[in-house]
Amino acid sequence: MSFNVSTSDRVELNDVTGEVIAEIDKSGVKEGIALVYVPHATAALIINENERGLISDMTAAISDLIPRDRRYEHDRIDDNAWSHLTSAVIGCSLTIPITGGRLECGTWQNIFLVELDGPRRRKVIVKVIGA
Amino acid sequence: MSFNVSTSDRVELNDVTGEVIAEIDKSGVKEGIALVYVPHATAALIINENERGLISDMTAAISDLIPRDRRYEHDRIDDNAWSHLTSAVIGCSLTIPITGGRLECGTWQNIFLVELDGPRRRKVIVKVIGA
Amino acid sequence: MSFNVSTSDRVELNDVTGEVIAEIDKSGVKEGIALVYVPHATAALIINENERGLISDMTAAISDLIPRDRRYEHDRIDDNAWSHLTSAVIGCSLTIPITGGRLECGTWQNIFLVELDGPRRRKVIVKVIGA
Repeated sequence: MSFNVSTSDRVELNDVTGEVIAEIDKSGVKEGIALVYVPHATAALIINENERGLISDMTAAISDLIPRDRRYEHDRIDDNAWSHLTSAVIGCSLTIPITGGRLECGTWQNIFLVELDGPRRRKVIVKVIGA
Repeated sequence: MSFNVSTSDRVELNDVTGEVIAEIDKSGVKEGIALVYVPHATAALIINENERGLISDMTAAISDLIPRDRRYEHDRIDDNAWSHLTSAVIGCSLTIPITGGRLECGTWQNIFLVELDGPRRRKVIVKVIGA
Repeated sequence: MSFNVSTSDRVELNDVTGEVIAEIDKSGVKEGIALVYVPHATAALIINENERGLISDMTAAISDLIPRDRRYEHDRIDDNAWSHLTSAVIGCSLTIPITGGRLECGTWQNIFLVELDGPRRRKVIVKVIGA
């Protein structure tokens, strides 16, 4: 099970909580876990609150986590070393509990695809395990 | 399955390994995985050694991972943008193997709830998958 | 299921994708998830591209994520606080989807054991869940 997201900026957060919930509903699993995974080396996943100001703060904080202005060796092949490094450190995989057929997220927890080398078309895989 | 932790400081590490092991024991699962999850946008989870000096070092390192002195947009709504940003980057989800009915952690690996906006009462969810 | 890796430098990335795939093949699981886990408090796991220049960039970026030159309390006991702190922040656990009997990684996604206090002999646990 997977869905696609079209991103529109170099670095951008996309809330995919609704799409993940739809995949869990389709699976029929009531008790278990959902693995959310991006099969990309220049994107990542995070969980946090969907508040307009905070999205701007998260975009800025993620942009500054790894220095952008270094002379990276990978940039001689493909000018996106920073995107790879940020993806490696933040991570491309999230695991979330499912209880009573619902994502057991907190009230202020949404799932975001983090684009780090956009704009691109990205795939998000949702694997549901349980019964 | 879940348990609660009452934290006492703004930024604080709480060792919850014993509580996680108790939930795995209750589940009766012998081979599988344990998902440990905090349903909070201003807390996180890490795994490392429970040594007094290192806990102090980890608290300091986590405190400095994201700059505290920036002018964050979310702070106009709720004065805890730093807590959200640190939670988003460190993460709220851990997955650990269970083998022979036991957490297959290393000798120097304990599970810590990372409070980032305390003191608060926090919930830790443990979801055990396997047989 | 587990395998060992002998590392040769203080900080070093080791591509273990082939070993993880071999464990999944042995498990016979066609649909599910693979948990990759290092039971060490001074090592970590990341996913990214295996390109020579990028490996050098990742090694440098990981080396600089946590300051090395601080006076850490844990260094009075064991001179590797930096290794613990970097392990805690990057993480020792990865969860990856298995579809049609194969790791559903992207083309540019390889799994790396991150040595942070080598050279040492490290264990990598692979737990496969599914059917």
